[in-house]
Amino acid sequence: MRANIKKNGLKRVVVVGCGLGGLRLARSLRNSGYQVVIVDKNNYNQFPPLIYQVASAGLEPSNISFPIRRIFQGYKHFYFRMAEVKAIDAGEKAIATSVGPIHYDYLVLAMGGTTNFFGNKNAEQHAFPMKTVVDGMRLRNHILETLERAETEEDMARRQKYMNVVIVGGGPSGVEIAGALAEMKRNIVPRDYPDLADKMHIYLINASDRLLKSMDEKSSSTAEAELKNMGVHVRNGWRVTDYKDNVVYIDNGKTLESSTVVWVSGIKANVVEGVPEGSVGHAGRLLCDRFNRVKGMTDVFAIGDQSLVEGDPDWKLGHPQLAQVALQQAANVASNIVKSDNGQEMKPFVYKNLGTMATIGRRRAVAEIGSARLGGTLAWLLWLVVHLRSILGVKNKFFVLLNWMWNYFNYMQSLRLILK
Amino acid sequence: MRANIKKNGLKRVVVVGCGLGGLRLARSLRNSGYQVVIVDKNNYNQFPPLIYQVASAGLEPSNISFPIRRIFQGYKHFYFRMAEVKAIDAGEKAIATSVGPIHYDYLVLAMGGTTNFFGNKNAEQHAFPMKTVVDGMRLRNHILETLERAETEEDMARRQKYMNVVIVGGGPSGVEIAGALAEMKRNIVPRDYPDLADKMHIYLINASDRLLKSMDEKSSSTAEAELKNMGVHVRNGWRVTDYKDNVVYIDNGKTLESSTVVWVSGIKANVVEGVPEGSVGHAGRLLCDRFNRVKGMTDVFAIGDQSLVEGDPDWKLGHPQLAQVALQQAANVASNIVKSDNGQEMKPFVYKNLGTMATIGRRRAVAEIGSARLGGTLAWLLWLVVHLRSILGVKNKFFVLLNWMWNYFNYMQSLRLILK
Repeated sequence: MRANIKKNGLKRVVVVGCGLGGLRLARSLRNSGYQVVIVDKNNYNQFPPLIYQVASAGLEPSNISFPIRRIFQGYKHFYFRMAEVKAIDAGEKAIATSVGPIHYDYLVLAMGGTTNFFGNKNAEQHAFPMKTVVDGMRLRNHILETLERAETEEDMARRQKYMNVVIVGGGPSGVEIAGALAEMKRNIVPRDYPDLADKMHIYLINASDRLLKSMDEKSSSTAEAELKNMGVHVRNGWRVTDYKDNVVYIDNGKTLESSTVVWVSGIKANVVEGVPEGSVGHAGRLLCDRFNRVKGMTDVFAIGDQSLVEGDPDWKLGHPQLAQVALQQAANVASNIVKSDNGQEMKPFVYKNLGTMATIGRRRAVAEIGSARLGGTLAWLLWLVVHLRSILGVKNKFFVLLNWMWNYFNYMQSLRLILK
Repeated sequence: MRANIKKNGLKRVVVVGCGLGGLRLARSLRNSGYQVVIVDKNNYNQFPPLIYQVASAGLEPSNISFPIRRIFQGYKHFYFRMAEVKAIDAGEKAIATSVGPIHYDYLVLAMGGTTNFFGNKNAEQHAFPMKTVVDGMRLRNHILETLERAETEEDMARRQKYMNVVIVGGGPSGVEIAGALAEMKRNIVPRDYPDLADKMHIYLINASDRLLKSMDEKSSSTAEAELKNMGVHVRNGWRVTDYKDNVVYIDNGKTLESSTVVWVSGIKANVVEGVPEGSVGHAGRLLCDRFNRVKGMTDVFAIGDQSLVEGDPDWKLGHPQLAQVALQQAANVASNIVKSDNGQEMKPFVYKNLGTMATIGRRRAVAEIGSARLGGTLAWLLWLVVHLRSILGVKNKFFVLLNWMWNYFNYMQSLRLILK
């Protein structure tokens, strides 16, 4: 087995990871005179902002995933390899992968991050992360299975354990999944499981003093009010210390019994060997200069969640790990590669915040754009448009829109299949 | 744990298996004055005629699957239990299940069948069956993975092994999956894997002397001509004797190297304990009288693929294991249960053949209705309408139609995700 790609006289850019950042970067290099090799362990690109809707049975995995080969059909000098990347051999200018070594002239690391359980092995083993569409499917299957189990459980205490859902993390992901599950509780459970109608309880455990800490206080209080209104139990200032034998332990001594814990409270960068030890920063992020070049390496860039750009006076702790940052860094790195080969000066990365938003439920969202603070239906419509625009492929856009409209008008998703 | 269903003074009909037959039967008992308990190991009903389209990435699992609880929303006195059925306790008039015993006044077995490998352990372990949507997904994932592997394989002989697909069975399922994969070969592979454009070979191995043996000779020759035209290698009169280490062994001494063998050549009935030994017939089918009552049992019926009705002079070997038979038996048994409780005479089952059809590809199908023999576009359109009508749920009908139209007009499915 070997990677099987012939050098063809062009300089080769190898992109590791075809998430939002890697994909944008590769696309930016179309017709730029480079050979581009995209490496990913999956054969599809996925759209993280909507994974929670896969979990709540509102969307299909295929609605927010797109085959990488399909994306690059017709791109000249583009190659895709489905492979795991094991290490960088900086001396050889090559990466070691599960399909053999791949040489690079430029290497871009865009491997993103994974769930950070902060060393809590029990949580890592038993809680559900929400970083991939496969995570989303797994959570969906689990919730449907526990509902089936609850129906046949005689012991009332044990049944309640099946009916309690605990979400750990009060950021946008936590708020979104809490809202989506609250709608499932209100619209689906009473119809499909009449005996369990009022039994489901959703707890949102948030370590900081308010939800959506990265947003404005007004957005936080709007989100909290909406969630409470939908029956979600919001617990601010609670920190989870452990999760074992279906019991969640809180630092204030309280406990919650639950067979379903969703963990959306932290992220750590994916790891690749062969990076100088001193270049790995907080939570595994690779320390970069303002051109996203990894410290102590040559012709190696890191972008998005995997990177931490140093030296920006406005972002002393690095930029937030958001889709926008990844997308903007991708475009900047692509253009810098071209610039430097043309003898032009490279441009340092400057983050432009286009606004942040989080959806809470049907016709409920919060959005911050510049100094504007939006809530309610307007924010929700904006959220819809922005996300629909970002989803790859005409067909996927169309089908996601149809799914949403369908659910909007009849309140009943029919994707509740336990498929393994 | 217990099944947790209170008797409420009504007679209880327990239906095991919510496939085409079980579902039809349960629906026929709506508002009939019975308590109906549906038991299935999955929480969804699936539509077998289109599983091959899941395998060829033309449809999503959720397009042809439907949550059972959703189907019976609003049905009074209907209960669903997701459970495995282990045995019948005829003396107690109860079934033993994974959620505890469930008593019945009438029991209907509609558990269908599974793939028959005819005792060939190697094939059972390594070949892909095509009986469930999960089978379909598994085959889809496998084919996409072998294409990825072929791209990085240096050894040409080994690469060809990845590119050969062998389908065992020349009935409708074999013809349909061969046609669908031939279209994948023609429309998808050259675009997604330019280096593998002409390398894929599809073999259809058929033990009998012609394809679609249950249909007319004219339909057989049409199907064979169409498949050959699409590049499928049809091998009539070949019988597979073994499949190991990626080699398919044929009874005529020939061999085929292939890492992908699809096995659609036989069916055996699913098994439940507690049936008198003498009541189990060919390939596990339960021997029934003409009212679908299992021989030697009281108030126990079997329908569809799991049953074999004796005593019909027109069908001395039993009826074919087809959707139509299951549906018609379901309706007849439901009405007979009501009749017998009202002191009316039960009606023996009489099979009415409404016609048979098989699709071969885009605008290619064969159909036989009464004495009419259709081919080409007309048969294909008919096939489309008939199957669309049979799919449950407005939303599913609508989405399947959209998927088909989409694929029809742009020849490119985008469901090629390797999701596990």
